[in-house]
Amino acid sequence: MQASEILRAKRDGLELTADRIRWFVDAAVSGQAADYQVAAFLMAVRINGMTAAETSALTLAMRDSGRTIKFDGLPGPAVDKHSTGGVGDKVSIALMPIVAACGVPVPMVAGRGLGHTGGTLDKLESISGFNVQLSLERFEQIVREVGACVIGQTEELCPADRLFYSLRDVTETVDSLPLIVSSILCKKSAEGIDALVMDVKSGSGAFMRDDDEALELARALCDVGKELGLKVHALVTDMSQPLGRTVGNALELVEAVDLLRGEETAADFAQVTFELAAHMLMLGGKAGSPEEAKQMAHAVVADGRALDKFEQIVEAQEGDWVTVEDPSLILQAVGEEPFVSPEGGYVTGVDAELIGRAAVILGAGRRKASDGIDATVGFELHKKIGDPVAAGEPLLTTHLGDLSKKDAVFALLEKAYRFGPEPVEPPTMIRHVLSNEGES
Amino acid sequence: MQASEILRAKRDGLELTADRIRWFVDAAVSGQAADYQVAAFLMAVRINGMTAAETSALTLAMRDSGRTIKFDGLPGPAVDKHSTGGVGDKVSIALMPIVAACGVPVPMVAGRGLGHTGGTLDKLESISGFNVQLSLERFEQIVREVGACVIGQTEELCPADRLFYSLRDVTETVDSLPLIVSSILCKKSAEGIDALVMDVKSGSGAFMRDDDEALELARALCDVGKELGLKVHALVTDMSQPLGRTVGNALELVEAVDLLRGEETAADFAQVTFELAAHMLMLGGKAGSPEEAKQMAHAVVADGRALDKFEQIVEAQEGDWVTVEDPSLILQAVGEEPFVSPEGGYVTGVDAELIGRAAVILGAGRRKASDGIDATVGFELHKKIGDPVAAGEPLLTTHLGDLSKKDAVFALLEKAYRFGPEPVEPPTMIRHVLSNEGES
Repeated sequence: MQASEILRAKRDGLELTADRIRWFVDAAVSGQAADYQVAAFLMAVRINGMTAAETSALTLAMRDSGRTIKFDGLPGPAVDKHSTGGVGDKVSIALMPIVAACGVPVPMVAGRGLGHTGGTLDKLESISGFNVQLSLERFEQIVREVGACVIGQTEELCPADRLFYSLRDVTETVDSLPLIVSSILCKKSAEGIDALVMDVKSGSGAFMRDDDEALELARALCDVGKELGLKVHALVTDMSQPLGRTVGNALELVEAVDLLRGEETAADFAQVTFELAAHMLMLGGKAGSPEEAKQMAHAVVADGRALDKFEQIVEAQEGDWVTVEDPSLILQAVGEEPFVSPEGGYVTGVDAELIGRAAVILGAGRRKASDGIDATVGFELHKKIGDPVAAGEPLLTTHLGDLSKKDAVFALLEKAYRFGPEPVEPPTMIRHVLSNEGES
Repeated sequence: MQASEILRAKRDGLELTADRIRWFVDAAVSGQAADYQVAAFLMAVRINGMTAAETSALTLAMRDSGRTIKFDGLPGPAVDKHSTGGVGDKVSIALMPIVAACGVPVPMVAGRGLGHTGGTLDKLESISGFNVQLSLERFEQIVREVGACVIGQTEELCPADRLFYSLRDVTETVDSLPLIVSSILCKKSAEGIDALVMDVKSGSGAFMRDDDEALELARALCDVGKELGLKVHALVTDMSQPLGRTVGNALELVEAVDLLRGEETAADFAQVTFELAAHMLMLGGKAGSPEEAKQMAHAVVADGRALDKFEQIVEAQEGDWVTVEDPSLILQAVGEEPFVSPEGGYVTGVDAELIGRAAVILGAGRRKASDGIDATVGFELHKKIGDPVAAGEPLLTTHLGDLSKKDAVFALLEKAYRFGPEPVEPPTMIRHVLSNEGES
């Protein structure tokens, strides 16, 4: 086989066989197909698309380009949750111990923040010593012994995905449905899970800007997941405004721990967390209905088992639990500055993308993958959509690491808020729920 | 400006401004845009196309990526001829001295053979010592002093074209109309000519497989040529069977010289040569009508001025004229083998591509650009479309350098010929004549 055959077919909009796709993925990883050939392939896929069968074949070939984990002999199905990324999305941190505490094993390979969206690994690393670069052997062991573990993508998992992603990033081929689906699912399939709950974010702070786009991705994830033998529940959830009341790594960690402690947290964050946890529990065979599942999840928070489980995970991953118990140890920004409302009325919009971009300026996120981050900086949101506000009242508090950045940050914040004279409803958080179970 | 902007726009089928195209071409040559970004751009252009304005801007930017020649003070307009490539196409060798002998300066930057198509440079190098790697200064000097000179593309001319072509070759983006047009015309525009005659070959031995495709390319060459200030006459000519009675480098050189000597040659070769020469003479301001122009061309052949001009060119380019005067010095293949007709009747087809591929097996052509060639090998065709043939009568004579290749060559030749019981007309050689003069 030759790279030219595959390029020619995809260029001409023809369907590639699974064999050809596998050959090309292997050739890309081995270097037999050069970077410029892979780039031309990615552009052809971006323009001409792929069928569901092609996307499935691509996902399998990408998965098989590296090591795959098998969790034989676990007490039940292993279930993971993955989000397409948003602003203030600390759901994984709260949900992982809740679900594990209910007896469902959660092996999680998570990502870092890039652009205006945050990453679970960065948030967990606010905990002193927390190690997300464990060997796959240690990862498997912690999942077996503790019930949950979270690591970053290793060199061994899906090398084809790392290659493709690095080229997509510089060839304007990131926003391709088959390339997004295969990139997500190859890693999920490689981590040895039986089922997956997908949180497909929709709105200005998300990759998918509206519900139609998000729904299309959710359907594709269900369809391709089925081909891989993976049960998938895909929820389309709101990302028009930041989730919860914090944006920033240590701030979000503390907010997630507050939820695990059973303290009162932002309604949107709690709703999304318990909804996704419930789907994981159903997929894990622990509950027959969403109501029953949500009750279980609330129960392990109420009686402290979820927080205990998080402590076990943190300690297994070499984190210092003291820095979780005493948030003042990690919330050490140089200065705090309130950002006040220029007018009175009701908040009608808090643009998630602009808040995310302001967080990048603070140092909470990365412009490019090689940038470092400052865990201590971010925002505490006091007002969200639907809240009344008086002129001069603080909309949020900025946690600054470098006071000179205030003006640039505030300039973005001024564009992020919208106000109106009448109260408005907060956004509906759970927009759609899809599943690939029970279909023919 | 950033490569990402340009990639995104072309990916989405938008029209690029001339500024953006020029920026990208410069970035590609300087390395600011990486090879994989250029490859993705080429694939996007191949799939989404380019407008005439974009193609013109691309051509100009590619031309300006290197040195350009200016022939100020020549006695009249400088005119070149370029062919899209075929099998047995030795027209340039005969036509260049004819046109120069009539007083029209011919600066020619020609190519080498690749795949089943031959190249003018390879054929001229059958002449002992003939140098096609002259400096641009020497090239200009010979054009001024002798009236014609032919060289290969140098490092200095259109470096963007060399980069793009090398990437097109390995990313299945060769057959893109805007990329073909810009590649041809940037070099022609850089060589300092005022007018161009294009021979767009049509048929199995050509890049354009039918007249519609060839006509589309011919029109695009006229349109973009006009934007560049270049007068273009574009002729669509037959390449369903090899042109003339020889295929192979020294064999074709000898056939071209036979025409210059005024000897009887194949009707198709003579017709195409005099037709293209006539258009060059009209563009050079030497004749007002094709008839007058053809008369001039025949006159310089009849009185020996064309052959004298060829001698001057060969000597200026360091070639040994003795090897032109005595063909036996260069027609030194190891062995000759007739290929006989399996049946009697009339020849109805001689597949140019298959003959060209058989010539590559003989060593007359290249599989890849870095291959060497054997100037002595090739075919003498005794029968062409329309000719009667008896069973067992030779269809052609093979000139072999390596006798062990006979079987592989004959296996291809067997597929190349078609026969019928009734006489058929030879193909019409001149299918279409287009011009960009006199249009608004």
